[in-house]
Amino acid sequence: MELERHGRHFQEELEQLKTRLLEMGGLAEEQVRLAVKALMERDRELVALALNGDEPINRLHIEIDGRCFTLLALHQPMAVDLRAIVAAVKINTDLERVGDLAINIAEAARRYAQHAPVKKLIDIPRMAMIAQTMLRDSLDSFVRRDTDLAQRVLNEDDKLDALKTQIFRELLTYMLQDPGTIEAALDLILISRHLERIGDHATNIAEDVIFMVSARDVRHHAGEGQPSH
Amino acid sequence: MELERHGRHFQEELEQLKTRLLEMGGLAEEQVRLAVKALMERDRELVALALNGDEPINRLHIEIDGRCFTLLALHQPMAVDLRAIVAAVKINTDLERVGDLAINIAEAARRYAQHAPVKKLIDIPRMAMIAQTMLRDSLDSFVRRDTDLAQRVLNEDDKLDALKTQIFRELLTYMLQDPGTIEAALDLILISRHLERIGDHATNIAEDVIFMVSARDVRHHAGEGQPSH
Repeated sequence: MELERHGRHFQEELEQLKTRLLEMGGLAEEQVRLAVKALMERDRELVALALNGDEPINRLHIEIDGRCFTLLALHQPMAVDLRAIVAAVKINTDLERVGDLAINIAEAARRYAQHAPVKKLIDIPRMAMIAQTMLRDSLDSFVRRDTDLAQRVLNEDDKLDALKTQIFRELLTYMLQDPGTIEAALDLILISRHLERIGDHATNIAEDVIFMVSARDVRHHAGEGQPSH
Repeated sequence: MELERHGRHFQEELEQLKTRLLEMGGLAEEQVRLAVKALMERDRELVALALNGDEPINRLHIEIDGRCFTLLALHQPMAVDLRAIVAAVKINTDLERVGDLAINIAEAARRYAQHAPVKKLIDIPRMAMIAQTMLRDSLDSFVRRDTDLAQRVLNEDDKLDALKTQIFRELLTYMLQDPGTIEAALDLILISRHLERIGDHATNIAEDVIFMVSARDVRHHAGEGQPSH
């Protein structure tokens, strides 16, 4: 039905938009992976790579925004197509922020490498893996309009929160026992919060997907929302 | 011209949308004010008030999103009107996040009140004032389509960044001198970062306003962007 109304051209444009968002998601995920690898390996070159890697994401951010405007203006989509494009606008913003957070992680990794390591890092790479998977799954759920997968993303968020709290408590103990670790431990705490926020962005995306598919608003436990049309 | 094309009804709906966004901005700003006041006065009742104050913001968040969808679907706006509604979708998201950040500040204020005060707080309320003003000005710039005001908001962001760095350095000194202050100082550091992020949201809004009015993308120093139509 949508296909008939808007014609093949619109659907092709929409597919291209999705491809671009997936591409951007892949870049953002790679940036996070790189920043955390730079942290783990205390590697200056990797830090530099991560710090300078946001350019393609920023270019895509602007391009995708432009595509959304064009689709809205030229094709005046309705119902699920309209919701898909508005979701794309929001997802685009979320992915750009993930890119920014990867930069923040790389900056903290650079500082961290200037101090003696506080401890063997186990929970931070674990958080990174969870956040990256959430990000990938949230985008897959968008492309496939898969609300079950989106719901699984929402369920993962508690794990990140628990790990963040655990990391905080452990590092606090280190700081109290040895004030010489304070500066380095602070950077690890900040990194764990950046990773938590990456999970929050994946959560936002998953919520947008559920709204897009079902016109049901799961934010703020709103229950049954108003279908937009 | 826009008025003729879309008729009086569309313009009225758009005005209502703006009024709602201003209302939401006022609530978000008030939540930030309350959370910082709770911190300063170490007042349990104020903390509780701030922690429970996000309900009206969350309701407005959903209502405004619905209004944007309705405007897009029923009136199929073009050019600056289209950009205004897409900007409203984004601004709505930013304001909701500001509400979340106020809750985060209130949570940190609750923990902070359980410890002896680290120091007399001067820079944090200063940051809060700047962030609140940026938020108010960014919304005013949206309603009045005032790019000069939006530009002034962008210029303020450096002040927040400088204060955040200053707060961090000062608190680090306290922590190193007296590990007994570590936990409390950590909460102040987190609060300063929450306030910085509130400034970031105001910055996002200001950038959206500049794009809405001039179709010029000032994000990522993109220079002259493509007008959407």
